[in-house]
Amino acid sequence: MHHTLSVLVENSPGVLARVAGLFSRRGFNIESLAVGPTERDDRSRITLRVDCSQHSIGQVVKQLYKLINVLKVNELTADDAIERELMIVRVTAQPADRADLIRLGEVFGARVCDVGPTSLMFECLEHPDKLHAFEEILKPYGVKELVRTGRVALRKSTPERTRSGRMRVLA
Amino acid sequence: MHHTLSVLVENSPGVLARVAGLFSRRGFNIESLAVGPTERDDRSRITLRVDCSQHSIGQVVKQLYKLINVLKVNELTADDAIERELMIVRVTAQPADRADLIRLGEVFGARVCDVGPTSLMFECLEHPDKLHAFEEILKPYGVKELVRTGRVALRKSTPERTRSGRMRVLA
Repeated sequence: MHHTLSVLVENSPGVLARVAGLFSRRGFNIESLAVGPTERDDRSRITLRVDCSQHSIGQVVKQLYKLINVLKVNELTADDAIERELMIVRVTAQPADRADLIRLGEVFGARVCDVGPTSLMFECLEHPDKLHAFEEILKPYGVKELVRTGRVALRKSTPERTRSGRMRVLA
Repeated sequence: MHHTLSVLVENSPGVLARVAGLFSRRGFNIESLAVGPTERDDRSRITLRVDCSQHSIGQVVKQLYKLINVLKVNELTADDAIERELMIVRVTAQPADRADLIRLGEVFGARVCDVGPTSLMFECLEHPDKLHAFEEILKPYGVKELVRTGRVALRKSTPERTRSGRMRVLA
C-alpha cells in the first residue's frame, strides 16, 4: 500500500540523511521524495511516498518523531490533500510529428519549454496519475529523457469539504 | 556558490540515504532535493541543490561516482538547463481580497486549486526565482502553508543553443 508522508523539519545538515536512513534500514524503497523550502526560512518540508503496510507506516511515523530536527509528521491521503507533481520530459519529435505532439501536450495542460531539431521538451504540473498517463501517450514517439519531482501535497481546507462533501470550484 | 546536480541512480533501497549521507558527512546543507521516476522503471533521478565551493563540488562528484547504484552525475548550470520547480501555497484570502489574489496568481501563471472560506490555494510551475517572487508578493496577505518540490532540471537541446546563441521559441 502506498503512503504519502509530509514531514516538517528544521533546516540543518544531516536531517535528510537521517530520514532517508530510517527508511533504508527497514528496507523500504522510497518511491519519490521532494524536499524544499517552506513559509519559514528555518524549516523545510519533506514529502515522500513509500510502499509498505499500514502497520509499518504507523511504526515509521513514531520513529520519525524520535529523530532530531523532525517537527511534525502528517500522513496525507488522496481524499484530504491536493497532490501535484512536476515533470519535464524530452520526446523525439520529427518535424512531421511536432504539431500532433504540441496538441497532445495541450490536452494534458503541458507547456513546450524547449525545441530542438528533432525533439520537444514539455513541462507539466498535474496529479501524478495524470503525468503517468501523459508519459504513456508520449512513449510511442520515443521518450529521450524524463525527470519528475516526486509528489508534493497540502491538506485541503477542511471546512469546505465537510460541509458539502465535495470541493466547491471557483468560477 | 550554488550548484545543481542531476544524479541518475538505480532504484534500490538505501541509494538516497547514501547520497544524502555523503553531503551531511561533509557538513553541506542540501537546499532542495527531488527524486522521482525517469524514462526507465529501474532508474530514478535525484536533482539536488547545494551551496559549496567549486572545488568542493568537484570532490563531491567524484565521491558520488564511488557510491554503488550511482550511474551518472551531471552538474547543470542555469545557462544550459531548463530549471523548474513546483510550489503549492495556501494564502489567507478574505472575501474582499479574493479577486485581487486570483488576478495576481494569473500574472505568475499560478492556478487556484482549492478555495476555503478565508483562504486560497495556488499551484504554480515556474523557474525557482519566479516562485520566490510570487511568494514575496503573497506574504503581505499571509502565507499559511507552503510546499515546494525543489528544482528539477534537464539539459537544453544543445544544437539549438550553439547555433543562435539564444532559444528559439515555437509560435
